[in-house]
Amino acid sequence: MDLVTGGAGFIGSHLVDALVNEGKKVKVLDNFSSGRMEFLSHHDTNDNVEIINADLLDLVSVIDAMKGVEFVHHLAANPDIRLGTQVTDTDLKQGTLATYNVLEAMRINEVGTISFASSSAIYGEAQQMPTSEDYGPIVPISLYGASKLGSEALISAWVGTFGIRAYIHRFANIVGPRGTHGVIFDFIHKLKKDPTRLEVLGDGMQEKSYMSAEDCVQSMLHILKNTSDSISIFNLGTGDTCSVSRISEIVVEESKLSEVSIEYSGGKRGWAGDVPKTYLNVDKLLATGFLPTSNSEEAVRNTASSLIKEIGLF
Amino acid sequence: MDLVTGGAGFIGSHLVDALVNEGKKVKVLDNFSSGRMEFLSHHDTNDNVEIINADLLDLVSVIDAMKGVEFVHHLAANPDIRLGTQVTDTDLKQGTLATYNVLEAMRINEVGTISFASSSAIYGEAQQMPTSEDYGPIVPISLYGASKLGSEALISAWVGTFGIRAYIHRFANIVGPRGTHGVIFDFIHKLKKDPTRLEVLGDGMQEKSYMSAEDCVQSMLHILKNTSDSISIFNLGTGDTCSVSRISEIVVEESKLSEVSIEYSGGKRGWAGDVPKTYLNVDKLLATGFLPTSNSEEAVRNTASSLIKEIGLF
Repeated sequence: MDLVTGGAGFIGSHLVDALVNEGKKVKVLDNFSSGRMEFLSHHDTNDNVEIINADLLDLVSVIDAMKGVEFVHHLAANPDIRLGTQVTDTDLKQGTLATYNVLEAMRINEVGTISFASSSAIYGEAQQMPTSEDYGPIVPISLYGASKLGSEALISAWVGTFGIRAYIHRFANIVGPRGTHGVIFDFIHKLKKDPTRLEVLGDGMQEKSYMSAEDCVQSMLHILKNTSDSISIFNLGTGDTCSVSRISEIVVEESKLSEVSIEYSGGKRGWAGDVPKTYLNVDKLLATGFLPTSNSEEAVRNTASSLIKEIGLF
Repeated sequence: MDLVTGGAGFIGSHLVDALVNEGKKVKVLDNFSSGRMEFLSHHDTNDNVEIINADLLDLVSVIDAMKGVEFVHHLAANPDIRLGTQVTDTDLKQGTLATYNVLEAMRINEVGTISFASSSAIYGEAQQMPTSEDYGPIVPISLYGASKLGSEALISAWVGTFGIRAYIHRFANIVGPRGTHGVIFDFIHKLKKDPTRLEVLGDGMQEKSYMSAEDCVQSMLHILKNTSDSISIFNLGTGDTCSVSRISEIVVEESKLSEVSIEYSGGKRGWAGDVPKTYLNVDKLLATGFLPTSNSEEAVRNTASSLIKEIGLF
């Protein structure tokens, strides 16, 4: 049986869909802080999907949930990067400490393999673009990035000390239906509040790799099937980027609103800890034979269209 | 005023000595779990040295201790790497969580600079030898190494998000008087118990860089004076290595014992999480104009001689 932490969340619920499609038995562990039961409601009548409402910070619950599990997909985390600057232990707890509890519960239950959702945020403002997996030194600038690097460190220590196998996926910005955070989500909510004006945080020049949640989940599963090192580290992204100003234009186009005034708050960053540019080298992913179905701009456009329907603009 | 966490410990107490020599006012924060009051007893009558007995896991105490501090030297940590394999949250708590509390107390008290004792353990079994600061991917194999990498991640996030300045020193194996752990310390205690036989964990081929505590402390202070980036990362070591079998010979020679049988337990590692070979590239350190006074073998010999006197063999 596969366990998906954060399985009721944005990316987690897409992963559950994909695993169910493969005929797997899936246990979901989620505290529903940002995950939603409705993201999994289409599995209500499927006996292969079990949902446990528990918090990863409660080690006893995690040890209990780990019983009968053979493979862990650890996706649970605080999804709101900006929150880290206000409540500084958010990412430490929901990132690094939660990962420790997952690993300790695996050790106690002798579960052998973990697949972990890390992030391009660990690279901070990398000097090398596009940034490859062996880039160093790794100097994250956000508390979210720090929690992901701290989690990677624990996972690699568990591989080296206790002999588990690990897959570390360093995600680009992942976008798609069921998104609950991020720039596209924010823009739609802003337009809903004021359909005449869209404020963009920063100068709009921030530029990042965007990957669809569907491509993200499929690339993760592709890697699990095609690599067998004791620890495998992969950048997951599309090999291109899209700027924030371009995203604002795409969201306005998809909104069908006319005469929206796009305004910039100015400055290089959207907020303290925001990385102005991330651009991942995904040669290692492509070498496994995986090809993303959407590039960054297509992923952004499809997501804008889906989220406008989900959120409702009018 | 400078704060030294772990200032009553092995390296910390040497740093306090050096800071006092420079005329600095020094506050020591130590929980005396492995630190010892006697390591600082020669400062008893010095009004420039204040000692606070508190635990870094008690955030309120750390915030309180941070008052009036302008510069933090963060050296406190669990010094017993092997313990991490038995009590798996030791390094997480005494490493990563303690570092979070130090950083949060700095933020609250608006303290601007941290100098952090990291470790070559973060590199795990690096493919590049000697290993330079920009080596990647960084995949520690011990829980101690993971806690140091998790701490580095938090520090760099504090630099990027809250604008502090940071110095990260990645230590080779540091040895010298007042050592309370490590291979030389262990060998002397084994000879004290049985002067006819010395058991070496592993095959003796483990090979690491050893630096004297005096050189370590002087190189740290040299870097603080000669670099001014927002974040500076330096390997601290001697640019050479010494094998465990050679260390066993040196300890036996310094013990003046004759007819000691050196026996090997066998295997590549001394214990799970032990890195068989570490060899740091210290070109960046040397380029600052700092020259270590002892190479690895000299540092080992001087330490063996000092610790034999401290511990007493007969």
